[in-house]
Amino acid sequence: MKILKDRIIQDGVIEKDILKVDNFLNHQIDVELLNEIGKEFKTRFKDQKIDKILTIETSGIAIAVIAAQYFKVPVVFARKTDSKTMDKEVYESTVYSYTKEKNYTIRVSKRFISEGENILLIDDFLAKGKAIEGLIDILDRANANLAGVGIVIEKGFQDGGKNLRDRGVILESLAIIDKPIDGKIKFI
Amino acid sequence: MKILKDRIIQDGVIEKDILKVDNFLNHQIDVELLNEIGKEFKTRFKDQKIDKILTIETSGIAIAVIAAQYFKVPVVFARKTDSKTMDKEVYESTVYSYTKEKNYTIRVSKRFISEGENILLIDDFLAKGKAIEGLIDILDRANANLAGVGIVIEKGFQDGGKNLRDRGVILESLAIIDKPIDGKIKFI
Repeated sequence: MKILKDRIIQDGVIEKDILKVDNFLNHQIDVELLNEIGKEFKTRFKDQKIDKILTIETSGIAIAVIAAQYFKVPVVFARKTDSKTMDKEVYESTVYSYTKEKNYTIRVSKRFISEGENILLIDDFLAKGKAIEGLIDILDRANANLAGVGIVIEKGFQDGGKNLRDRGVILESLAIIDKPIDGKIKFI
Repeated sequence: MKILKDRIIQDGVIEKDILKVDNFLNHQIDVELLNEIGKEFKTRFKDQKIDKILTIETSGIAIAVIAAQYFKVPVVFARKTDSKTMDKEVYESTVYSYTKEKNYTIRVSKRFISEGENILLIDDFLAKGKAIEGLIDILDRANANLAGVGIVIEKGFQDGGKNLRDRGVILESLAIIDKPIDGKIKFI
């Protein structure tokens, strides 16, 4: 997706080999760009039946709700933190975070994922794919169908994308980056 | 706002005197309703100059980005959790959470709130107002201007709204609920 790649080149920052896109995607959010991203996801998944979008807090939420306008479906986000108002009846899965170096539990109320529903997963980044695997685990527990996975930026030098594609998952990543060398961003 | 109030009556659930709206606002998200909410915020703040919307993770994000489409401004969300990719240069404030019964720190990168910017704060709920006070504290530290506060559901029986109005803050709450009695929702 050209305007996304241009924006990553223009505003992305490499810090210790990590691409930071916090000035337009996951801290400050450029809502116009998100609309283009949402439209692109709709184009890429136009042949899939999609009943609902599932994402994970925090950074996936903005992308998912803007995209949902083009799919005309509701969004559900998996919670990483427990809350007093959270249902007791939840689907849950354990996810290992490489950035935080610990396991955490993600939860979705059983009321919001139903058997047979066709679910599109959306997230900002895909690296080793642990968060997406956790969401797929939740879909499996709910007997819901995985319609596909939409990712804004895939780290092509880590194996999350390959693992999903090898399993036959319909994965659409709008930009796939290579390992940054000398602070330079390259796309695959 | 009639369609919001109707929806709260239809789908809101009172559990131990707490209003749960997790099937359309803060776990599963009805994006069509959010669009109506976004338009209503734009109408209510049409006379204010607004350069940016600031919200707080998690539940504020979806509301803020949909509303931002009508204001044509970027969104920034304050982070509650530290992250490896977070800037070291941040404005921060401490917020007491009555639901979690502890203090937490909220942070915004100094790059995303500038002196003199006119900022609209948006959040899902207003009760005692501690989260909004934390965001206002961050605006003060940044010498940014508070253009107003937009809230989806204000708990009119707690003092957050009164305190803000007493200080002259332009506060627009789309639904103001009274203390639930016998599991019934009443608006003020």
